[in-house]
Amino acid sequence: MANSKYEYVKSFEQPDVLLPNTWIVVRIDGRGFHKLSDYYGFIKPNDRRALDLMNAAAVGVMKDLPDLCIAYGISDEYSFAFHPNCQLFERRSAKLVTTIVSTFTAHYIYLWGTYFPDTPLQPAALPSFDGRAVMYPNSRIFRDYMSWRQVDCHINNLYNTTFWSMVLQGGMDRREAELELKGTLSSDKNEILFKRFGINYNNEEEIYKKGSVLYRQYQLEEKSDSSVQEETSPLQEDMPSKTQQEKIRKLRRKVQVVVDHVDIIKDEFWERRPWILSGKPGKLPTEAKEVA
Amino acid sequence: MANSKYEYVKSFEQPDVLLPNTWIVVRIDGRGFHKLSDYYGFIKPNDRRALDLMNAAAVGVMKDLPDLCIAYGISDEYSFAFHPNCQLFERRSAKLVTTIVSTFTAHYIYLWGTYFPDTPLQPAALPSFDGRAVMYPNSRIFRDYMSWRQVDCHINNLYNTTFWSMVLQGGMDRREAELELKGTLSSDKNEILFKRFGINYNNEEEIYKKGSVLYRQYQLEEKSDSSVQEETSPLQEDMPSKTQQEKIRKLRRKVQVVVDHVDIIKDEFWERRPWILSGKPGKLPTEAKEVA
Amino acid sequence: MANSKYEYVKSFEQPDVLLPNTWIVVRIDGRGFHKLSDYYGFIKPNDRRALDLMNAAAVGVMKDLPDLCIAYGISDEYSFAFHPNCQLFERRSAKLVTTIVSTFTAHYIYLWGTYFPDTPLQPAALPSFDGRAVMYPNSRIFRDYMSWRQVDCHINNLYNTTFWSMVLQGGMDRREAELELKGTLSSDKNEILFKRFGINYNNEEEIYKKGSVLYRQYQLEEKSDSSVQEETSPLQEDMPSKTQQEKIRKLRRKVQVVVDHVDIIKDEFWERRPWILSGKPGKLPTEAKEVA
Amino acid sequence: MANSKYEYVKSFEQPDVLLPNTWIVVRIDGRGFHKLSDYYGFIKPNDRRALDLMNAAAVGVMKDLPDLCIAYGISDEYSFAFHPNCQLFERRSAKLVTTIVSTFTAHYIYLWGTYFPDTPLQPAALPSFDGRAVMYPNSRIFRDYMSWRQVDCHINNLYNTTFWSMVLQGGMDRREAELELKGTLSSDKNEILFKRFGINYNNEEEIYKKGSVLYRQYQLEEKSDSSVQEETSPLQEDMPSKTQQEKIRKLRRKVQVVVDHVDIIKDEFWERRPWILSGKPGKLPTEAKEVA
Repeated sequence: MANSKYEYVKSFEQPDVLLPNTWIVVRIDGRGFHKLSDYYGFIKPNDRRALDLMNAAAVGVMKDLPDLCIAYGISDEYSFAFHPNCQLFERRSAKLVTTIVSTFTAHYIYLWGTYFPDTPLQPAALPSFDGRAVMYPNSRIFRDYMSWRQVDCHINNLYNTTFWSMVLQGGMDRREAELELKGTLSSDKNEILFKRFGINYNNEEEIYKKGSVLYRQYQLEEKSDSSVQEETSPLQEDMPSKTQQEKIRKLRRKVQVVVDHVDIIKDEFWERRPWILSGKPGKLPTEAKEVA
Repeated sequence: MANSKYEYVKSFEQPDVLLPNTWIVVRIDGRGFHKLSDYYGFIKPNDRRALDLMNAAAVGVMKDLPDLCIAYGISDEYSFAFHPNCQLFERRSAKLVTTIVSTFTAHYIYLWGTYFPDTPLQPAALPSFDGRAVMYPNSRIFRDYMSWRQVDCHINNLYNTTFWSMVLQGGMDRREAELELKGTLSSDKNEILFKRFGINYNNEEEIYKKGSVLYRQYQLEEKSDSSVQEETSPLQEDMPSKTQQEKIRKLRRKVQVVVDHVDIIKDEFWERRPWILSGKPGKLPTEAKEVA
Repeated sequence: MANSKYEYVKSFEQPDVLLPNTWIVVRIDGRGFHKLSDYYGFIKPNDRRALDLMNAAAVGVMKDLPDLCIAYGISDEYSFAFHPNCQLFERRSAKLVTTIVSTFTAHYIYLWGTYFPDTPLQPAALPSFDGRAVMYPNSRIFRDYMSWRQVDCHINNLYNTTFWSMVLQGGMDRREAELELKGTLSSDKNEILFKRFGINYNNEEEIYKKGSVLYRQYQLEEKSDSSVQEETSPLQEDMPSKTQQEKIRKLRRKVQVVVDHVDIIKDEFWERRPWILSGKPGKLPTEAKEVA
Repeated sequence: MANSKYEYVKSFEQPDVLLPNTWIVVRIDGRGFHKLSDYYGFIKPNDRRALDLMNAAAVGVMKDLPDLCIAYGISDEYSFAFHPNCQLFERRSAKLVTTIVSTFTAHYIYLWGTYFPDTPLQPAALPSFDGRAVMYPNSRIFRDYMSWRQVDCHINNLYNTTFWSMVLQGGMDRREAELELKGTLSSDKNEILFKRFGINYNNEEEIYKKGSVLYRQYQLEEKSDSSVQEETSPLQEDMPSKTQQEKIRKLRRKVQVVVDHVDIIKDEFWERRPWILSGKPGKLPTEAKEVA
């Protein structure tokens, strides 16, 4: 359609294309969820409904955006990863981040009633999320990122489990509990849990201890010897054309998205699911777990 | 809490602070709304329910983010503007954009049922929005941006009104109508509307012709002579401290957000509402219009 | 010419276009000039030869790059400014910065022998400069930048003049002098200079007290009343085409570049030379000062 | 020293830190060297003096900046590479680029007289260079970048050798030669050279055909089987502290910088000089070639 003399203002939009051939992680965080979890009465230290809602919203994002190859969530945060060969939205940062944040929010609000049937949302306290895109130059560093989040999950959950046991079961006030836990090691917290409350931390639910990892379910492979991930260049990969990309997306949409609660720090997870780091589709599965 | 050896990955997050003392416009756009409006049966050329929903979601954003000083919406897009003196989130681009996109989406999904009571949302077709932040170095250029959007509103609405009259009332097929309109001037379209369908475009509703402008309702001022907007520097403005910012936010939350459908290209709108360009609060109003 | 399969690597170059309609200041700094000034025996506190060499190199840059509208130098640093309407190199940051740094260095090395005829350069200790580009959104803030540099010039020169008087004339050792000066006010330093060494700081040479400002010499205008600098948009300025830009450059090359040592903090300097802030050529001069 | 109210302008400097753990290539190009080479009478198609001067300036840069691990030059351009583990200037882009551009320019101007004793520089036509920094996420892609430049060297040199033979020896005018060469393959050009001018392109000097590669001369290693370059993360490399970095720099300064004219596309070059891609020092050499 027709233009106007004001159109020059478009030139103020600045390009924000992310570096080619790097992993892109979009991490989103709940805004003010500390206050919000009080407002809607989330159970402490972990509210299974809230985590299931986070996971359901994340599955919605994975389904809407087949370019995503893995996601990992703990508490009120979720990390979504695009493979280095991803060309979605020409790798424009704002476009990638806002699409994920908005899609996640849409699913979260839409599904709220399913997970919190007795706690309707209030317009003045709607949940929302912010986000950012970060590049990681190779698979090694990308895996370190994922490990960082899972270690954080462990550290936070052990702390929270101990803290809330002291408060809810032990009757301590919050400040007292905080003070006692200051400077303690993991072993100290394990001991407090076991000795005072008869809780063996190892028996806690995996979803709380490991967080949630989402991926497309191809057939698991045997653990292989060649764990070395070679560096690649687009030259060798024959970058897919727009049409090919669309074809790949269609195929991916058909693969089920799995919600798992397993160790993603050790090599095994990645070796048995080589399609995640390679960016190439695996074999169709014969069995499936907790399918979303 | 405790750290881990993986924490070095945090160093890959890159700063994205926007240039100080510039206008920041966050524009959001509906993703795939062409398809979506067909899916949910939006009325053509303008669905009042859909526009009212957009406006209600935008009012929600304005209320949640008192730093915003004006917003302007047409069709499935909305522009939200922060004044050059805004310090919200240290002016980090991703944080500003994702917060607005997520908050808008949350309100949109939450309020859907109010505006489309007979058309429930489907999980496979949830509305979502993308967004971007653009800096404009001075008020003159910021106003040109706003003018650009309102001219676009006019051009698109005149075209759409004519096109859908030809199709829905005139019984033409879409392609035929498109072909006939190709290359026509505004005057041609006005004539088609009037001669063939008895429609005087000037009598169309203001919300369709002018779009929707949202602002905080202080007392309107008389049109003044000194329309010149002087260039300023933070030096002269005495940048507000964090505490002062919080105080200003509290005051702004109390001021009503108005949804208006008026000309924002001419000077009058800005002269009578000097608080928008100055970033300083106006006088409390004695009268109010369509208050949200 | 022909291509190769490796050409995809070009896609890793990221755009770095500066925001339109902002002032661009490229500031360059001597690398390790503290050590270098000892190595080549610069006179303390000010070596007139070294400053004249800096100014001569800066004049070379102004002549080679007619888009520059003003430059300001103190000690081993120089700031070069482009007007908001500048389109040189499509406003690519790296291109602008490196061109200025390289051109400056070339003139500096080339002219060294003229200013230091008895002190030949040594290949292991060649002077070099680093640089950066900074955007300033309006003339008010740009002037504050220039004022910042001139205030810095004053503060540093008063300190250095006092310090070196105490060391060279007063026979104090450097540490002693540093300790005594710690925490002193301007008035204290003026007093030390006057009482101990009979130096009236006001009588020091202007080049040391005020630094050096370079601009193109059009005819000075009378101080006008309308000191208000209106904000502009490219809309109103009718952005020059590539051909027009080239024409403007040719005209500017003919105007003499002046090296001045005057106050640039007060309004007078800018009011009498309106072509600097307006970006529009002035009237050809009838008289000229110290022409470079 | 003391501050001023204008200091807020410092907040307009924006961070430009390059992504950690990526290769950084700073490529510099002669500004207007087409015209300049005519002005100073450079010999066509290759002026050995001009290339030797480029190489000498590049050696100067490698010596001044021990963090550089390799450089490659053709015609009036030079690429300087920093290893992913490089921390120089906190990886600030402008600082890295301008330091290299300025240091290169300083050596080039300083050494001009050595290589062009009979052609003094003219102040109105001083050589200068622009530059840019590009990140490459892994060694594979970095090597593709280097291959790209060397292929370009070959393509340009074959073309230029043929073109200038046709003009200088064959007496054709430039336009005629250009037209005839349009669309020709390498084989065609080889044939023209051989049949018309008796030139066997393979016998041309290596510096023209291969360009110049500069690196620190440790002891060459036997070609090994394990050509696979594993991806690394800073975690495994134990990032060096500031003190360690300074120690490494000192050691590197002692290693001789070599100017070589060899194939850098095939694996052999990199396998025999593993210190370049690994970023770790090799063994001190027992023999040395053309040492700079």
